[in-house]
Amino acid sequence: MPTILVKSGGEAAMPEWQRHFAEFAPGLDVRWWGDAGVAPEQVDYVLVWDPEPGRIGRMPNLKLIFGTGAGVDFITADPDLPKHLPLLRMATKGSTQRMGEFVCWAALSLLKDARRVALNQAAARWKFFEPEFTARESTIGVMGLGNMGSRAAVMLQGLGFPVRGWSRSRKDLPGVTCFAGAEEFDAFLAETKILVCLLPATPETQGILGAPLLQKLPKGAGLVNVGRGSHQKLGDIIAALDSGHLSGAVLDVFEKEPLPAESPAWAHPKIIVTPHIASLPSRRERAEYVAAAIADHAAGRPLPNLYDHARGY
Amino acid sequence: MPTILVKSGGEAAMPEWQRHFAEFAPGLDVRWWGDAGVAPEQVDYVLVWDPEPGRIGRMPNLKLIFGTGAGVDFITADPDLPKHLPLLRMATKGSTQRMGEFVCWAALSLLKDARRVALNQAAARWKFFEPEFTARESTIGVMGLGNMGSRAAVMLQGLGFPVRGWSRSRKDLPGVTCFAGAEEFDAFLAETKILVCLLPATPETQGILGAPLLQKLPKGAGLVNVGRGSHQKLGDIIAALDSGHLSGAVLDVFEKEPLPAESPAWAHPKIIVTPHIASLPSRRERAEYVAAAIADHAAGRPLPNLYDHARGY
Ligand SMILES: NC(=O)c1ccc[n+]([C@@H]2O[C@H](COP(=O)([O-])OP(=O)(O)OC[C@H]3O[C@@H](n4cnc5c(N)ncnc54)[C@H](OP(=O)(O)O)[C@@H]3O)[C@@H](O)[C@H]2O)c1
Ligand SMILES: NC(=O)c1ccc[n+]([C@@H]2O[C@H](COP(=O)([O-])OP(=O)(O)OC[C@H]3O[C@@H](n4cnc5c(N)ncnc54)[C@H](OP(=O)(O)O)[C@@H]3O)[C@@H](O)[C@H]2O)c1
Repeated sequence: MPTILVKSGGEAAMPEWQRHFAEFAPGLDVRWWGDAGVAPEQVDYVLVWDPEPGRIGRMPNLKLIFGTGAGVDFITADPDLPKHLPLLRMATKGSTQRMGEFVCWAALSLLKDARRVALNQAAARWKFFEPEFTARESTIGVMGLGNMGSRAAVMLQGLGFPVRGWSRSRKDLPGVTCFAGAEEFDAFLAETKILVCLLPATPETQGILGAPLLQKLPKGAGLVNVGRGSHQKLGDIIAALDSGHLSGAVLDVFEKEPLPAESPAWAHPKIIVTPHIASLPSRRERAEYVAAAIADHAAGRPLPNLYDHARGY
Repeated sequence: MPTILVKSGGEAAMPEWQRHFAEFAPGLDVRWWGDAGVAPEQVDYVLVWDPEPGRIGRMPNLKLIFGTGAGVDFITADPDLPKHLPLLRMATKGSTQRMGEFVCWAALSLLKDARRVALNQAAARWKFFEPEFTARESTIGVMGLGNMGSRAAVMLQGLGFPVRGWSRSRKDLPGVTCFAGAEEFDAFLAETKILVCLLPATPETQGILGAPLLQKLPKGAGLVNVGRGSHQKLGDIIAALDSGHLSGAVLDVFEKEPLPAESPAWAHPKIIVTPHIASLPSRRERAEYVAAAIADHAAGRPLPNLYDHARGY
C-alpha cells in the first residue's frame, strides 16, 4: 500500500488527515511524520510545511513532495532536498478564494481605520470620525500576480478599488493596470495607496518591504503583507508608521513565527497583527488536492502548480 | 440672500460647511443653527440630524428640510414638523459606496472572526485557527433593499457571498434571491448565515432584531446592524451570542448613542462595536448634494430621495 508521511498540525491532527484521505484516496496509508514504525524506503509521498533538513533526501523511493502551503520556502531551505522530484505547492480553489477575502478585509480595514476603531472599542470610547476616502479613490497595488494575486485583484475591483499589479513577466488582467520587472517598479509604487504583497519568498524578494520601497509610496499609504515574513523589515515599517509616512499596516506574516510576545508589532496602534491565517485551506480541501495530484501522477498526467527550482518559486 | 441653517457637527464645523457651500452654492448664506442673529422668517432651508422639537415649525418661510443622514427618524420624531414641506434624505453617491464597503468589511470580519483575532492581538497571543467556511458557503441576507441595501448586495456578491434580500415590495436584483413582506420573512431567515439590517426606523421595524427573529436564523449565524439602534434588542442579541446560537455581531448603531461606557457590548468577546460610522459621507459630498437639490427646487425639477410620511421612510 502506498504511504504518505504528513507533518502538518502535529500528531494531534493525524486522525483528521486520515479521515479526509480515506474519503479522497482510500488506498493510501496515511502516517505521522514522526512514526518510528515507517522505514524511509516505505515512503512514497510527503506532505509537509517545514521538514527537518536532510530527512526527505533519505527516502529512496519518494515520488512526490507536497507543500502544505502555497509557498514552499521552508521545504526548499533544505540544502539536501532532492531536486529531481516534483515539488507541488498547495493551490486549492478554496485557497485563492480565502486569500482574496482576506486581502479585501485587510484593504477595507485600512480604508476604514479598523485598528483605531478596535482600540476605541477596547477603551469603551465612542469616537466618531470620517474616513476621508472611499475605495474609488484608493488605488491598490498588488505585488505578485500569480494564483493568489490575480484572484485578489478581481475581488478588490468588485469593491470599487482601482487596481494595479506588478509581476516578473507582464500580465494582462481585465481592469488591472499591469507593471512588470524592476524597470517599472517605481512607477507602480508611485500611485499605490494600499500596497499588497503576494510575492513568493525568493532571494530577489527578500527584504523588499523596507525603507527604500516605502519611501517610494505616496505619503499616507497603507501596507498589507500576506506574502512572507522574509519580505518585510519590520523596523523600517514601524519607522514609516511612526513618522506618518505610512498610515497603517496589516501584517499576517513575520520573520519569526509565532511572533514573539515582545515584538513591538503586537501593541502598535497602527498595525493589525494576524497569525498567518490569510489563506488556510481546510485539511479536507488539502487532502482532496493531494489525492487528485497522486492520481494524476499515477496516470502520467501533468502535475499542477509545480515549484520551479531555477525560478525559485 | 437665501439662508440655510445647519446643525451637524456643532458650531465648530461651520467654517468647513461654509467653505464647501461657497464652492457648490455661492449665493447661499450658511449659518449655524444656534445663531441668534438669524430671525425665523429669514430661514429658507435647514440641514439637520436631530432638531429640537417645535423649532422647524416656527420658520414661516422654510422651503426644504434636509436630513444629514439617510435616515431622518430624529427629524420626524418632532410632532410639530410641518408635513407639507419636502423632507430630503441624504443619498450621495459616496454614501451608498461607503455603506457597501462597510457591510463587506463587517461580513468578512464575521467570516474571518476578526474580533477573536483582535482580542488575541491585544493579548500578544499568536493563535492560529481555520475559519471553516469561505464566502461561497456563507449566504448573506440583507434586510432592506433600498439605496443602501441594493448596492451592498452587489458588492457582497463580488466577494463570492450568495445574497438574498428582503423588502416590503418585491425587488428584482441580478443574482439576488428576493423575498418580500411578512409572509416570506421566515423563509428568508431560514437560510441566512449572516444577517445584515439596512431597514429604516419605522413602527413596523422597531425591535425587529430580537429573540423571535434570532431564533429563526440557523445556529451559528452572524449579525450586522447598520440600520438603527431602535431595530435591535441588545439583551436578546447578547443572550443569543452567549448561548452560541449567534456566532458574532457587528453593531454600528445603538438605542442610546453615544453608547454608554457601561454597556456590555463594548467588552463582549463576540461583538464588534463601531460608532455609527458605517456610511458617513464627507461634508463636501453633502454640501454638493444639498446645493444640487436647492437648484432643482428653484428650477421646478423633481427632488431626489424624498421622505414619505405615509410610508414612514
Ligand atoms: N499568508 C498566507 O496565508 C499565505 C497563503 C498562501 C500564499 N502565501 C504567499 O503568497 C505567495 C504567492 O502565492 P501564489 O500561489 O500566488 O504564487 P505564484 O502563483 O507562484 O505567483 C507568484 C507571483 O509573484 C511574481 N514574482 C515572483 N518573483 C518576482 C520578482 N522578483 N519580481 C516581481 N514579481 C515576482 C510572479 O511573477 P510571474 O507571474 O512573472 O512569474 C507571480 O506573479 C506564496 O509564495 C506565499 O509566500 C501566503
Ligand atoms: N449606520 C449608518 O451609518 C447608516 C447610514 C445610512 C443609512 N443607515 C440606515 O439605513 C437605512 C436604509 O437606508 P436607505 O437609503 O437604503 O433607505 P431606503 O432607500 O428608503 O430603503 C429602505 C428599504 O427598507 C425596506 N423596508 C422598509 N420597511 C420595511 C418593512 N416593514 N418590511 C420590509 N422591508 C421594509 C424598503 O422596502 P421597499 O423597497 O419595498 O420600500 C426598502 O427596500 C436608513 O433608514 C438608516 O436607518 C444607516
